[in-house]
This record gives sequence, structure tokens and C-alpha cells, in this order.
Amino acid sequence: MDRTPPLDPVTELLTTYNELNSTHIDTLPSPPSALEFLRFVARNRPFVVRGGASDWEATKTWGIESLKALLEGQSIQVAVTPHGNADSPTTNEKRELIFVKPWEEQQSFSEFIDFISAQELRSPSSSSSSSVPEVRYAQTQNDNLRNEYLTLFSHVDKDIPWARIALQAPPEAINLWIGNSRSVTALHKDNYENVYVQIIGEKHFCLLPPVAYACVAERELRPASYVRKDDGCLEIKEEAGDLVPFPTWDPDGDGQETKYSDLAQPVRVTLRKGDMLYLPALWYHKVSQSTNEEGMCCAVNYWYDMEWGGSFYPLCNFARSVGIAALT
Amino acid sequence: MDRTPPLDPVTELLTTYNELNSTHIDTLPSPPSALEFLRFVARNRPFVVRGGASDWEATKTWGIESLKALLEGQSIQVAVTPHGNADSPTTNEKRELIFVKPWEEQQSFSEFIDFISAQELRSPSSSSSSSVPEVRYAQTQNDNLRNEYLTLFSHVDKDIPWARIALQAPPEAINLWIGNSRSVTALHKDNYENVYVQIIGEKHFCLLPPVAYACVAERELRPASYVRKDDGCLEIKEEAGDLVPFPTWDPDGDGQETKYSDLAQPVRVTLRKGDMLYLPALWYHKVSQSTNEEGMCCAVNYWYDMEWGGSFYPLCNFARSVGIAALT
Repeated sequence: MDRTPPLDPVTELLTTYNELNSTHIDTLPSPPSALEFLRFVARNRPFVVRGGASDWEATKTWGIESLKALLEGQSIQVAVTPHGNADSPTTNEKRELIFVKPWEEQQSFSEFIDFISAQELRSPSSSSSSSVPEVRYAQTQNDNLRNEYLTLFSHVDKDIPWARIALQAPPEAINLWIGNSRSVTALHKDNYENVYVQIIGEKHFCLLPPVAYACVAERELRPASYVRKDDGCLEIKEEAGDLVPFPTWDPDGDGQETKYSDLAQPVRVTLRKGDMLYLPALWYHKVSQSTNEEGMCCAVNYWYDMEWGGSFYPLCNFARSVGIAALT
Repeated sequence: MDRTPPLDPVTELLTTYNELNSTHIDTLPSPPSALEFLRFVARNRPFVVRGGASDWEATKTWGIESLKALLEGQSIQVAVTPHGNADSPTTNEKRELIFVKPWEEQQSFSEFIDFISAQELRSPSSSSSSSVPEVRYAQTQNDNLRNEYLTLFSHVDKDIPWARIALQAPPEAINLWIGNSRSVTALHKDNYENVYVQIIGEKHFCLLPPVAYACVAERELRPASYVRKDDGCLEIKEEAGDLVPFPTWDPDGDGQETKYSDLAQPVRVTLRKGDMLYLPALWYHKVSQSTNEEGMCCAVNYWYDMEWGGSFYPLCNFARSVGIAALT
């Protein structure tokens, strides 16, 4: 009898997932009910609501001048990197891959926003950053919209009702993001259910489900941070702390692929002004951005605690552990 | 540095699941809303609703005499086995484990119900079956309540509204079960979301989550059926068809355990008259039963299609494939 040898379990996991799921993201015509939302949470699948936040005060009124007026005299925390590579695997001088956090400093909001806008409008292409002294990104993910940016908070929904009702909790954090096309967020995952809302400009998401663990080439990287020297330049300073497990594969291609990376089928979606994205817990995401005519990109996201009970988390962790074993 | 060696992934899966989940079943005071139900579906966790069907016509009025009247003159399909072991791993004369289906025959309902009642009331203990000529169980799982037993259907809810709304489909099958304490349903799983309703007597469920795959000692068993000989006795007849993958471990102990079985933490629950159980898709379940004072046990269950999209099914199948590899 002619028998096909069994697939290795990791290959079978990825091909089964691909057979049962589309790379096309579901698009809803309007925000879902709590019940409709929970069906997506149960499947751990993303969706987008086109124009779901187009009537928000923020979406309708924010721009450089209005934000400067709202935040007049305030300083904000800014992540500074040479290449827009905050929280990214980066090659050091010895050609070793390390995990680099940005230099963080307080800047006046007005100065910050003028910098990112001028940089973008002068040279919008992010393909060559050789002539750029530094890239700035307001990206503190510490519930900043209810703290640092409290004066802006009344212009966005104070939570996402369908998510709050379905998940039975208020958002754990609400974060504001302001930057330009120089910044790219490297592929990573968060332990949160995430509702992402585009206010100004565009964000380009490349999404991979948690089953893709063995595709993303997670490695344990030494931690480092950029530090601003007295001459204003940024240099990498390595740190003592624990190694950081982090994906090193770039789905847009940079040579760190594993033997399973070809089986990854990314879901790609661009959020435009007023669009909402449900980014399910533990999904890998790489995010790049485009600006509006003012040279600015702005988004808000709502993090809700994920469910740790039941089968989902133990099974995702299992896929990770088996993936590690299959790749070593 | 003192480092603990990493757990093997299957052990880690089982211990993580056990740490994050209780063996105590959630008990709801009344039937859930569709949203509340879907939260359990999303977690793939069971619950029980005590008295959730106590006001059903069936629960209030069914008994031997009323059922005889409702089914007067009708014959039904009955599963017949020597030891109450329909669809069970069974040792043949050569001491090999095979998968044995029951002998199926048509009997008058009146004769069937008198037989199970008399057998139970004469000798209710199921511990010794040596003196019992045969065990009968009405257990066709082919939507029998909307076909064979149609005259009884108006006495139960025609579907479970919270399940239909949450899962966006009517039940795929509604099944009636009538037997006595001689019948035990061996540990197995179904590809359905299952709502189980106790009408008469008690059912004792031993439940294991899908992550317990490596605990249940699934083996590929040769198929067989009981056949009634001319002298009325039952004998095993092996069949040609495909091997049947089936759990062979009995959580109540019979020596087929794997090296992982000790890590299985069963959820045990007894359904009494009018109770409802949500038995999530792909959960292993072993079911035994006790009768009422008439010597009868009767239940109804609603099967809803499970969700195949998303992460859940591929990850459960992955746990099975890795479990097979870890045990061979």
C-alpha cells in the first residue's frame, strides 16, 4: 500500500491553519455587537471596521495646530533612534544581533511635532535613512492617553463598548502613538486583546497568528539601549539584564527565516483615517506607517486583558515550546 | 548557575493547563445568555445549569407509563451488548484490544422499556454482570428525536436558544438516550458543541479537556461488532474496515495509562433530573448512569457544529500529533 509519510507536527499545524483560515481579513461595515466581537475573540481572528471611528472628535479635528493648542506648554516622552528601530533586533558593531530599546527623553510637544513633520515633508521616503540624524516616535505604551495626554482623552471614546462588554473589563491601557514614516515597529506579540484606531495617516499591519511561532525565528537577544552622547549622537549601550526572547524574522525579508517561515501566510491590512482593527491576543504584528499631508501619523489603541483560562494560552505556549524544540 | 532542565512540551502543556484551570465545574444558577455562553465556548470550558430544564414537559411528565402511551405500537432501534459496552475498546478471545460496536435491532418500545426497568430493579448493581444475559440501550445518535421519536419532540425545547444565537446555527442533531445503569459510554470525544439535558435518573460524567490527548492512550483498534446468533447469544465479529483511533485509558483505572495519564485532572459532574451540561467540543467524556425508582435513565442532547476556523482546532490537532510522537 502506498502511504505518505506523516508530516512533522509543526508543518501539519501550519498547513492545517492555512487550509482552515484565509489571509483575507474580515471587514465589518460597522462596529460589531459584543456577541459578534466575542465570536472573533473565540476564533482568535482579526477584523477591520472601515470608518468605525470616523465620527470621533479626534478623527475630525486633530492636526498639528489643534494638537499644539491642546498640548500647549507640555512636554512628552519621546523614543529616539537612529533608524526608526525602537524595540527592535539590531546588528551591533560586532555584527551580533541584539535587542535595542530607544533613547527616551522629554521634549516639548510643539518641538517634537514640528520635527517629525518637517523630516517627513522634506524627505518622505523611508528607504534611505543615511542622511537622517535621528527618528522620533511618541510611543510610550503605558496608558499614556489617560496620563501624559489626558487633555486629549475626551476626544476619543473612553473605551470600546463592545470589547468592554464581551471581555467584562475596562481597557487595561489606552495608548496614543504619534510618528512619521521613518518608524517601523518590529514583528512582536502582546498578551492583550487589542483594538487599534487610526486617527491621522495610515498604518500598514503585517499579521501572523500565534500558531506561526516556528516561523518567526525567536531568539534570546542581549538587551541594549540607545544613549544620547554629549555631542547629541546616539550610540548603542549593551545592558546586563536578562536575555530578551524576540522574533528575528522580518516577513518582508531579511534572511533570518527558519525552515518553517515559508509556511507563514501573513494577513496584511492598511488602516486609514477612522478605521479600527481588532488585533487578537498573541498575534505577531509588524507595523509601518504613512503620514497625512502634514507629515504626521497618529493612532490610539485599547489594550484589554486576554483570557488566560481555558485551552488557548496553554496551547499557544505549547506551539512555542514544540517550535523551539523543532528548531534546535 | 543552577538551571532546571526544561520540561518536555507535553508535560508543560498539561501542567500549564492544570495551573490555569480548575477541576471544579462552573455552576450557573440559570441558563446563560448567548454572550455568557459564548465566553465558555471561547475558553472551551464546561458548565452545568442546575434545574435548567426542570420546567420542560419531558422533565415533568415522562415515565415508563407516559412514554409507553406516547410511543404505543412503535418500535425503536436498540443497541445490544453483553456488558453495556457499546462502542468500546474490548478484549477479544485472543486478549487483543478491539473496538466493538453493539448489535443493533428493532424492538417494540414497550418491550424495551420493560426489559431495562426489570433488569435494573431486579439487580441494580452494575459491578457484576455475569448473570446478565444482555444490556440494552436506546442510543442512536442520528438526530433520533426529530425522527424515530418525533412524537416526543414537542415535550422538549426544540433548540437551545442561547446556543443557537451564540453559534449562529440550529442544532445539527438532537438525540434521545434511554437505558439503565448497566450501560457505560467509554471515554471518547465528539466534534460538536454539546448541550446535555437530564430528564430522568442521573448521568455521571468524567471529563477531560482536549489538551489531555497524550493521557488517554489513543490506539488504532480493529473494528468489530456484536452479532446475535440463532440461539440469541451475542458474539464478537471482527470487520475488515479501517482501524478506529480510540482512547483506551479508563480514567477510573484499568491499566492502559500512558506516562502522561497521571497529569490528567478529570472534571467530574453528576447531572440530576432537569440539569443541563455544556460539554465543549473535543472534550473527552466517559459517561455512566443511575436510574430513577422506575429503573430508567433518560437524557436528551443537542449537538451544534463546532467552529473549525481560527486557532482552536489546528492547535488541538497539533497536541494530538505531538502526543502521538511523544508516545511512540
